[in-house]
Amino acid sequence: MRRVAMVGAGMTQFGELFHLGMKDMLPMAVSEAAASVDKGFDRADVQAAWFGELVTTDGFATGILADTCGLLDIPVSRLENACATGNDAVRHGTMAIASGMYDVVLVVGADKVRETSSRTTFWDWMSMTRDAAWDFPLGLVAPANFALHAARYLYESPHATREHLAMVAVKNHHHGVTNPKAQMRFEITVQQVLDAPMVVDPFGLYDCTPQSDGAAAVILVAEELADRYTDHPVWVRGTGLGLDRVMHQHKRDMTTFPPTVKAAKQAYAMAGVGPADIDVAEVHDCFTGVELIDYEDLGFCEKWGAAGLIESGATYVGGRIPVNPSGGLKAKGHPPGATGVAQCVELFEQLRGESTNQVDGARLGLAHNIGGPTAVSAITILGADKP
Amino acid sequence: MRRVAMVGAGMTQFGELFHLGMKDMLPMAVSEAAASVDKGFDRADVQAAWFGELVTTDGFATGILADTCGLLDIPVSRLENACATGNDAVRHGTMAIASGMYDVVLVVGADKVRETSSRTTFWDWMSMTRDAAWDFPLGLVAPANFALHAARYLYESPHATREHLAMVAVKNHHHGVTNPKAQMRFEITVQQVLDAPMVVDPFGLYDCTPQSDGAAAVILVAEELADRYTDHPVWVRGTGLGLDRVMHQHKRDMTTFPPTVKAAKQAYAMAGVGPADIDVAEVHDCFTGVELIDYEDLGFCEKWGAAGLIESGATYVGGRIPVNPSGGLKAKGHPPGATGVAQCVELFEQLRGESTNQVDGARLGLAHNIGGPTAVSAITILGADKP
Repeated sequence: MRRVAMVGAGMTQFGELFHLGMKDMLPMAVSEAAASVDKGFDRADVQAAWFGELVTTDGFATGILADTCGLLDIPVSRLENACATGNDAVRHGTMAIASGMYDVVLVVGADKVRETSSRTTFWDWMSMTRDAAWDFPLGLVAPANFALHAARYLYESPHATREHLAMVAVKNHHHGVTNPKAQMRFEITVQQVLDAPMVVDPFGLYDCTPQSDGAAAVILVAEELADRYTDHPVWVRGTGLGLDRVMHQHKRDMTTFPPTVKAAKQAYAMAGVGPADIDVAEVHDCFTGVELIDYEDLGFCEKWGAAGLIESGATYVGGRIPVNPSGGLKAKGHPPGATGVAQCVELFEQLRGESTNQVDGARLGLAHNIGGPTAVSAITILGADKP
Repeated sequence: MRRVAMVGAGMTQFGELFHLGMKDMLPMAVSEAAASVDKGFDRADVQAAWFGELVTTDGFATGILADTCGLLDIPVSRLENACATGNDAVRHGTMAIASGMYDVVLVVGADKVRETSSRTTFWDWMSMTRDAAWDFPLGLVAPANFALHAARYLYESPHATREHLAMVAVKNHHHGVTNPKAQMRFEITVQQVLDAPMVVDPFGLYDCTPQSDGAAAVILVAEELADRYTDHPVWVRGTGLGLDRVMHQHKRDMTTFPPTVKAAKQAYAMAGVGPADIDVAEVHDCFTGVELIDYEDLGFCEKWGAAGLIESGATYVGGRIPVNPSGGLKAKGHPPGATGVAQCVELFEQLRGESTNQVDGARLGLAHNIGGPTAVSAITILGADKP
């Protein structure tokens, strides 16, 4: 397969951006990605684009991206895969270059979760990311459906307690403090997490990701063109996408996310690496308990080893396997279409030694989403070394 | 680029399918596509799938396709590009095989326009296919925004009249009579079209496509595997996707659709053919006047030549360039996500000599969508001869 290089990456601030519309955020992210290209980037070089957006708050998605970013003479497609949209969009940009149909592509992700209008409410988000006939009317919206998994995980795990969930929030808030793009730049304590108002057992307020607006963009090029843009490309080493049954009554084991396991298997195989080779990871921590399950599904520790892993400090920057140095969804924020792309923005900076919360000597990074009714996962593995 | 063969194609009846949900239609279309594979098809062969769906009436799209069709162990992505969704999904299946990442892929398109619920109304469809802040509140929903083009076309054209629009409806209804999958299987006359109640000038009721439910599916494989499935593959010769400004006040010439011109240029170049080589076409006739503009944008006649072309009978089956032998959107129906895929189903049958309204000796066919605020077009060129 044709090798694919990432030569630019950028994103907006994540947060409650009431002062910015979709038409503001898209050009901001694309401009920052273009400006990050070491040897300069002419937007006219882009031959095709993908737009990961979960809900079309502003209407006709591909046209709005093309119109606001001056991309009217190239194909633009919208990709949607619940909260795995971002990394699935990166997967499509990779496939596009691998196909030989295009040499330079742009991958953009964005959403405005804090946008409400007569036509789009938060309930629209919820209904389109689960089974509208069964789970949605039963109240299995995002916090509730992930809580079922975390509650069962705590029940079955020989070690894990709500304190371990809280440690994830504490770590990611700590990491987010140094990230100027993060939505929540303040430290919290385990006690504060435990004392916060309950949202849905076992998740208190600080166990939950905030609702966020934001956009992120990466520029991918064919191997032969990488030198034209930078002497320090980052390489797309592997991609994966996994699915699971949609309805919760069909899930056989609530303490694991099979989509993550399937996506990881594909991505590790494509990259020719294993979990022990990963130096830094940005994983989906929409709720604290999810990050613990991610550790096990991604192979960062054994089954039931997640509590020990977070307790040991190994997933802090400076530890054995730093997870979410950007602050993660928990502190950086979570505009779903942007989230996976923004994870790749963080890894791009990490693998070039340019992050604001740098992992020393990081050569291989993994970005991970889990979304929908815990039924889809997308993974991207990026590397500093040419495959 | 790696060559891509279409080895199977199938679809549901199009119509007001109040008795069928999305979860019924998806397996029906996929089963018919699998059954059409001459040497048999094992669903376990599918390595990746794309789902073109405009509105997620039933919720989480990729999971629902995977769950209902037994595709849980492969990647499934949702593609959305307004009414160009179907042919853009076929473009993605083609790219996926060309990339070398997959050898056998499934492309499915479906929508339930007649579905209404507390969470999805027809206004949701309208708001997500145009600019929600400008065109939508001004009332530029689909009939109105296409009527602006048709009205201007009639004003500027030296020949075209409402009678020529009516002739498109008469032809496509005539073609639809022989198609068992068509929603409207009855003949109409020019006078009936002209006498029908006005919807939005110059479109009366019979100038407008119906609202439809339906699903369609095609199976694509890498060149090396085609023989395993059939001795009569159809080849994907070219694909194209074009865009234009989103808002109508930014369109410079209302008598042409620049997205179609751009998409056609890409698809003809990729196929190494021109408009004169096309033996049969399925084009986007969501409103009668649109088919006339399509003739000119696709190069089937000169500028202002469309009225003469429809008048001459050249676009009937048996004429020089038969257009919409299936009945088109007008008579076959228009569930947007399915429409482009279903056009490819018709061409698959035409190019194998198996259509119910067969164009004698058809070797090269073109499928075309134009959608959104007349701002996106997707085109697929299929051929009976290996490229």
